[in-house]
Amino acid sequence: MAMADTRFSNRRRKLAAELAGQRIDAMLVTNLIHVRYLSGFSGSNGGLLLRKDLSALMATDGRYTTQIAEEVPDIEAIIKRAVGPTLLGEVEGPTRVGYEADYVSVSELRKLEEAAPEDVTLVPVSGVIEKVRLVKDSTELQRLEEIALLADKALAELLEAGELAAGRTERQVAADLEYRMRMAGSERVSFDTIVASGPNSAKPHHGADDRVIEEGDLVTIDFGAHLHGFNSDCTRTFGIGKLGDFEREIYDLVLRAQEAGVKAAVPGAKLVDIDAACRDIIEEAGYGEYFVHSTGHGVGLEVHEGPSAAKTGKGELEPGMTLTIEPGVYVPGKGGVRIEDTLIITQGAPKIITPMSKELRIL
Amino acid sequence: MAMADTRFSNRRRKLAAELAGQRIDAMLVTNLIHVRYLSGFSGSNGGLLLRKDLSALMATDGRYTTQIAEEVPDIEAIIKRAVGPTLLGEVEGPTRVGYEADYVSVSELRKLEEAAPEDVTLVPVSGVIEKVRLVKDSTELQRLEEIALLADKALAELLEAGELAAGRTERQVAADLEYRMRMAGSERVSFDTIVASGPNSAKPHHGADDRVIEEGDLVTIDFGAHLHGFNSDCTRTFGIGKLGDFEREIYDLVLRAQEAGVKAAVPGAKLVDIDAACRDIIEEAGYGEYFVHSTGHGVGLEVHEGPSAAKTGKGELEPGMTLTIEPGVYVPGKGGVRIEDTLIITQGAPKIITPMSKELRIL
Repeated sequence: MAMADTRFSNRRRKLAAELAGQRIDAMLVTNLIHVRYLSGFSGSNGGLLLRKDLSALMATDGRYTTQIAEEVPDIEAIIKRAVGPTLLGEVEGPTRVGYEADYVSVSELRKLEEAAPEDVTLVPVSGVIEKVRLVKDSTELQRLEEIALLADKALAELLEAGELAAGRTERQVAADLEYRMRMAGSERVSFDTIVASGPNSAKPHHGADDRVIEEGDLVTIDFGAHLHGFNSDCTRTFGIGKLGDFEREIYDLVLRAQEAGVKAAVPGAKLVDIDAACRDIIEEAGYGEYFVHSTGHGVGLEVHEGPSAAKTGKGELEPGMTLTIEPGVYVPGKGGVRIEDTLIITQGAPKIITPMSKELRIL
Repeated sequence: MAMADTRFSNRRRKLAAELAGQRIDAMLVTNLIHVRYLSGFSGSNGGLLLRKDLSALMATDGRYTTQIAEEVPDIEAIIKRAVGPTLLGEVEGPTRVGYEADYVSVSELRKLEEAAPEDVTLVPVSGVIEKVRLVKDSTELQRLEEIALLADKALAELLEAGELAAGRTERQVAADLEYRMRMAGSERVSFDTIVASGPNSAKPHHGADDRVIEEGDLVTIDFGAHLHGFNSDCTRTFGIGKLGDFEREIYDLVLRAQEAGVKAAVPGAKLVDIDAACRDIIEEAGYGEYFVHSTGHGVGLEVHEGPSAAKTGKGELEPGMTLTIEPGVYVPGKGGVRIEDTLIITQGAPKIITPMSKELRIL
């Protein structure tokens, strides 16, 4: 018999402790990322009912009968397509059941209400599982390091192979990078790869199009791989041929800001202060209006998750959190630079899991 | 000044006609696929308010100020991040405003309720835009043909290059196919590529893993590209080296069923009958229990959308609809076959936009 994996029961215990303050008797989890986080089930349809006493019940459909038994040996599963209503229907006696109000649609809520036994009260719950997910356990951190390293190596190999060069299109470079990540084991990209060259580098949300990379360009590559549910996220900006003074100036500035952000990312640091550590340097240099996004975000089962290092960021860093530090300067029509690491917060200095050098590299 | 594209105003007119039966004065559209369908705006945050008189208003955030002006020259846009509440706040006088109940979360509805002026009534609306999207216009059909052809050529080139062969892993073949689609212009895959070989071919939802393809294997490849918002979807099954009698038998059976399904896909045909056209042949051959999914679905801005050719399918085909015909037989432990075309329904015989031959090809 497969052994139950204690990391999942540990996560359920953390959730139950958080829910104690919510005046509910059980939580109905239907967001698939949360189902996977709390049980290990990775199918595309599934739900979990977690009671205060830590007993649990799952549901999925017939495609996943074997898979759920293998992935979740310690929780009984009902095989029925409408997982939320099915799990609610199993609740006995007067019970307050929480549901994920940020993800359950109005139509889905109506179906839950119809399926709920008479003495069940449905209670909207927001942000609680996200809060539990903020501090990663050792398995999560290991997965995140593995996938970040896989992606890092793919970019290093692409550079070694001369695939980032004048005369190639952004799309070709993106395709090459994605291919290298895929061959190394990545299941998919964690988001659409950005290869933003020349004037496109001044658009923070540019994708990768048919523009031909030219001598003198800055090229920003923002990319991620995905494996076992976990994502990576890293950005580097490169120079092609001889860069002008403007390009060198903003590169040096963003690098200085980025390094200040990394240095600030220690336990107890306020998230607003980490944002300010980057932003102040860019503002002092007169480029404040060109840093048009926040400094960073957590990375895990989602490529963007808590915490948020922003002007409006709330709370403080704790060991076991992840955080990107990714300041950028984007001067419309001229060019831009973004440099991004993903960090694991530790007791001391943060661990950078995106190891590629940040020295300006000219190709 | 950029000219407004009439295809979007035509779609909004079709929607307004459908909404006439819903007793609402305006519709708040926040599903991004629907926003794109009705306006052409392709950003990652946006909303559209469409009034009965066809006047419209949009909202997005500061990242997309330039983009929305370029993509939607004929609708005024408010630049503010919380697009739903912002648009609702603009409604004047006693108004019944529909919202997309299948996509708006319970938390989002609460925010809409808070933002709505006092004499605005929020009305849940379901399935109306999906209904309008069922019959494609000429631009949509052209885009769908283009992307299907791009994907088809990528697979043809992969076969010619000998990249599907014994000794290679499923993941390598998937990576090669994705690379070829990407280099040809695909923005991303429309879903995770399936390369299911040998015993894995008997799992309809297998992905692509490290299994090494062997002589005697069936290999099912189910793949799609994505461009300008539109998706492709096609499946072919190949033989590696000398196939056994069982493999040849189920290939011939599935091909016969698939061709019967294609033949049945004419205007006026009931969707249940199209499903039956495939299913009956497989059942008569004694493999009914191994055809574990429905026969087909529409393809467009979503890779799975209406109509649904299933045992429970509702309604009839009309010219301008799209439909996949993808019967399969999956015998656990032994192997499986799926063959899938995407069709455009026309006045006469359907147009197959996935042209690769379905003759059994041995590699």
